[in-house]
Amino acid sequence: MQPIDKDNIILWPRDEFGRRLGRIREAMKAGGVDALLISDNANKYYITGRVYAGFVYIPAEGMPVFFVKRPVHLVGDGVVFFRKPEEMPETIGLNLPAVLSLEIDLLPYSMVVRLQKLFPEATTANASAMMREVRSVKTDLELDLLRRSGAKHVHVYSRIPHLFTPGMTDLELQVEIERVSRLEGCLGQFRISGDSMELYMGNLLVGENADTPSPYDFAMGGAGMDPSLPVGADGTVIKRGETVMVDMNGNYDGYMTDMTRVYALGDPGELARKAHRCSIDIHHAACKMMKPGLPAKELWKMAEDMAEAAGLKAYYMGHRQHAGFMGHGVGIEINELPVIAPKSRDILSAGNVIALEPKFVIPHVGAVGIENTYAVHADRVECLTPAPEDIIEFDV
Amino acid sequence: MQPIDKDNIILWPRDEFGRRLGRIREAMKAGGVDALLISDNANKYYITGRVYAGFVYIPAEGMPVFFVKRPVHLVGDGVVFFRKPEEMPETIGLNLPAVLSLEIDLLPYSMVVRLQKLFPEATTANASAMMREVRSVKTDLELDLLRRSGAKHVHVYSRIPHLFTPGMTDLELQVEIERVSRLEGCLGQFRISGDSMELYMGNLLVGENADTPSPYDFAMGGAGMDPSLPVGADGTVIKRGETVMVDMNGNYDGYMTDMTRVYALGDPGELARKAHRCSIDIHHAACKMMKPGLPAKELWKMAEDMAEAAGLKAYYMGHRQHAGFMGHGVGIEINELPVIAPKSRDILSAGNVIALEPKFVIPHVGAVGIENTYAVHADRVECLTPAPEDIIEFDV
Repeated sequence: MQPIDKDNIILWPRDEFGRRLGRIREAMKAGGVDALLISDNANKYYITGRVYAGFVYIPAEGMPVFFVKRPVHLVGDGVVFFRKPEEMPETIGLNLPAVLSLEIDLLPYSMVVRLQKLFPEATTANASAMMREVRSVKTDLELDLLRRSGAKHVHVYSRIPHLFTPGMTDLELQVEIERVSRLEGCLGQFRISGDSMELYMGNLLVGENADTPSPYDFAMGGAGMDPSLPVGADGTVIKRGETVMVDMNGNYDGYMTDMTRVYALGDPGELARKAHRCSIDIHHAACKMMKPGLPAKELWKMAEDMAEAAGLKAYYMGHRQHAGFMGHGVGIEINELPVIAPKSRDILSAGNVIALEPKFVIPHVGAVGIENTYAVHADRVECLTPAPEDIIEFDV
Repeated sequence: MQPIDKDNIILWPRDEFGRRLGRIREAMKAGGVDALLISDNANKYYITGRVYAGFVYIPAEGMPVFFVKRPVHLVGDGVVFFRKPEEMPETIGLNLPAVLSLEIDLLPYSMVVRLQKLFPEATTANASAMMREVRSVKTDLELDLLRRSGAKHVHVYSRIPHLFTPGMTDLELQVEIERVSRLEGCLGQFRISGDSMELYMGNLLVGENADTPSPYDFAMGGAGMDPSLPVGADGTVIKRGETVMVDMNGNYDGYMTDMTRVYALGDPGELARKAHRCSIDIHHAACKMMKPGLPAKELWKMAEDMAEAAGLKAYYMGHRQHAGFMGHGVGIEINELPVIAPKSRDILSAGNVIALEPKFVIPHVGAVGIENTYAVHADRVECLTPAPEDIIEFDV
């Protein structure tokens, strides 16, 4: 997408910016919010199409104010340069809000308290929760950006069988995939809402290492290369009969897809093939179910029931450690709404983009199962990561 | 380092763990703090030698409690598995703290409020600020880990001239350096305290792109490949007469060094060479000055004065946008204490590890100047990133 003016604070096309602002204001109105003060990079990118140091102030009516600290060359309606947050109320002037929404689930405590002091008359509402809801329904332009990432993601995965050479470690194969991804335009940055999860360019898990529990809510973890980053590849050689699960970064344009495929060196055995087949069957069943209005937890239940009926429950969503979700919204960040989990209260809407990842960990063999990213439309489900789904044997 | 028991919550050697705990308790005592509740990954890694989902609770006296959510297989004295923070006070029992220190500069507002409700009688102190102070003075083991990262960092940089081929873009060269770094053991993860800065594996800046202001407090920014990540390489071909500044990830074992070197395709010209020489001279002057007791702001002043005396102030620490600091502590995170800035109140101590980066941006040529990471000892300064400092011309 070519922005009209690359220095303008708003990089989205004007009508797209208006559409996003409209959605945010609908949510503000529904929540009884007079003004929104946004600081989080992902939310600023959603609104403006760029990342900058500073805030966006959106009153219920009238023009948004873009408080910019850096970069120093930005221009456009509503841009106000500032050094300290304490300068903001003067710019906002007389229309100080009675209910001010702040990103209380994202901003540090001390920053929220500092902002609250600037608006001592205002009640605080939860902007982070509201923005998660707004961002869970994608616009057509967002869907296009996701389609582009998906196409590149699929293209990179198609090269994986050609990157393997016998004797490689899991890390060596991951590094070659990282290189091809980057040369194809992968931005590297892996945006995760909140600061609880640390991950670098995704995961490649081989054999028994897939069954090593990680600090994170993953079906499969991996020991990692160092205790300071205990997740993913652990540097062991890929052996015959093991599976290689690739779940790597699909951020090619600010909006990322999530995709997993499984490779194997030789036959991974009957149980692994059966579980992989079950994962594909769950995807097919999910594609028939996903419609606006469907409670997310029904997807979780369908998948769990299918895994149990196949006699695979002990391996489903992990073996030594089990994940608490089977799918998640994806877009600017990897962990958006809706969440496909047993107690999820989310209801599917047209415009949701959902990554489904019913996976299994087979002891001594490795992880199997696929992940695709789907767009939910009013009348159909669109797969944004279309690619062969069976286990692909490395040809050596 | 081989931990004795890889599943034990404490991976540091016992005496090292005791040393760190002792330092934390000294700081707690000085601050009148009864208990510390830690959640941030960098702080948990500092204390235990590992990253896990959960909290560390450190009372002024008695045994710390390690509240673990995941991974499920951790063992050791004081490990308590939990699902919700609300279960913690019961475990802590009768000795509830009057002053509880929480990471209020790091944890989201809603999490701090949730924790405060669990200890309704307690006053809140600032654990994030305290831990930054504690972590600014490294132990001998930390210095060893930093030396190891430094040695690998230097080794990878020595290969950069061999990675360049004519016609390459800045991004293509960066990707080849990323690959070599990763194969040499670079963990990829680039830990930054707070959530304001986003960066992937460091920066490679060529020619005019170095002068593009970024959202961050950098002397040199770069446009990046996409507005969602507006920093670093922008995909242009490296041309004759331009400099190539490489400032890439030195995290090889959880403790990272910071290092910049400059390469050039042909002669970058008199002004660039003069500014690069000035940067090296500033480093040499700084190495003579850095002693326990030195106010950090005096280093800033010395460097700025030298840049001004050389007639280079317009290019010093950036040209279109200027950085507000010339150096910073480094360790588990890239932005530790002390900060070398004009209004810094930090005083140098033995055990500080400081990256100095006096840099210049020369319009139409690119960025010059070097960055080294130094350990400040009682009687000397040790360079952790020793490598040739002159501009290295690509041999084509």
